[in-house]
Amino acid sequence: MKQHTSRAFAQELEQLREMVLRMGGHVETAIAEAMRALVERDPDLARKCIGEDHAVNKMEVDIDELCVSILARRQPAAEDLRLLISGLKTSTDLERIGDLTVNMCERTLDLLEVPPLKPLIDLPRMAELAGGMLSDALNAYVKGDAELAQEVCIRDDLVDRLNEQVFRELITYIMEDPHTISQALALMMISRYLERIADHATNIAEMVIYQVKGRDIRHMRVGEEHAGKPV
Amino acid sequence: MKQHTSRAFAQELEQLREMVLRMGGHVETAIAEAMRALVERDPDLARKCIGEDHAVNKMEVDIDELCVSILARRQPAAEDLRLLISGLKTSTDLERIGDLTVNMCERTLDLLEVPPLKPLIDLPRMAELAGGMLSDALNAYVKGDAELAQEVCIRDDLVDRLNEQVFRELITYIMEDPHTISQALALMMISRYLERIADHATNIAEMVIYQVKGRDIRHMRVGEEHAGKPV
Repeated sequence: MKQHTSRAFAQELEQLREMVLRMGGHVETAIAEAMRALVERDPDLARKCIGEDHAVNKMEVDIDELCVSILARRQPAAEDLRLLISGLKTSTDLERIGDLTVNMCERTLDLLEVPPLKPLIDLPRMAELAGGMLSDALNAYVKGDAELAQEVCIRDDLVDRLNEQVFRELITYIMEDPHTISQALALMMISRYLERIADHATNIAEMVIYQVKGRDIRHMRVGEEHAGKPV
Repeated sequence: MKQHTSRAFAQELEQLREMVLRMGGHVETAIAEAMRALVERDPDLARKCIGEDHAVNKMEVDIDELCVSILARRQPAAEDLRLLISGLKTSTDLERIGDLTVNMCERTLDLLEVPPLKPLIDLPRMAELAGGMLSDALNAYVKGDAELAQEVCIRDDLVDRLNEQVFRELITYIMEDPHTISQALALMMISRYLERIADHATNIAEMVIYQVKGRDIRHMRVGEEHAGKPV
């Protein structure tokens, strides 16, 4: 009987992992599609992306419900408990990324009403980097790979720097011609959304490290994680 | 013995409530001080505010550790379990509000290097509204008052509208004189931070409703919360 319960429990945890991965995959696609809608100036794709966010919202609620139901019925300890905690926190980060892709599409729809301001180079690169961080954070989650997760955290700096570079460049456009302001502001906001997407991917990676090592490395600089207390 | 355990358990839940309230109070003060630093052009206050954020970060980790430790040792069910889930989610929202007050202070320090662009009217109002929403969300949390929490969610719209108004007004400044762009952008970003603080206060209020009613009203429009499933 004990054996049977354990197997059922393991299946539930496996189901949780699959749900997190499915939600993560959905959100990863949303980042790429939101950027493609901007680059290819495709309003239909932007609207499709906005319309699909409700599915992501539903996944957050489903994941949280499953975590709570497991917590209520089983008495998870150690790594199982941390997997559930990490599930609860990760669902929030994924949902916020989904919201940010919706914001990207909304700004894109504004931008499509006027001619393009400039060729887009840094923004697609940021989207690729942020999407790659999310993808690796999810890989680290599946494999329980704390090293890969650590590496994701380090890459966040690069996205921050690109965001600053985009801001500086767009300011020069506005200075030269104030009439470009709406376009420049919309592009600045998209840059900022991508920077926040990378932050959320970092949060997810930090949760993987917590889950695997039982150490909470949030609010520590890279390299000082040995100061973390086991929970 | 059962009685004794229950009392110890109740004390732990009370301790959790107090920690959430203390963290909330700290963050509420940070919102007010960050705005005061901007209005009174006080760089020392801005730097003090930035320096104090590490305490908020520590509180997040402490709250999460307590929640995990209670989950691991007790077998909480129903409302107790929801209190712990809501503690885990609320600590994240409070920590993000703390980060946003740091961002406000950073933009304020940039702004203090140049003469003021305009008298500030809407931003202090937004800070008051967002701070009031947080304060009421925390009141609702202590009292388990779902109605008050519901009311907080509704007030979020007003802050969103003020944010749009601030954006529109600042754009006119840039159009008239592109040299005002750095100041105008910094003020726009502060407006956006305040709008996001109000979003986090709304998240906290939604968690109170979940905690009290056992219904997850996230991603529902106001008025459709009856569709929520009990967890």
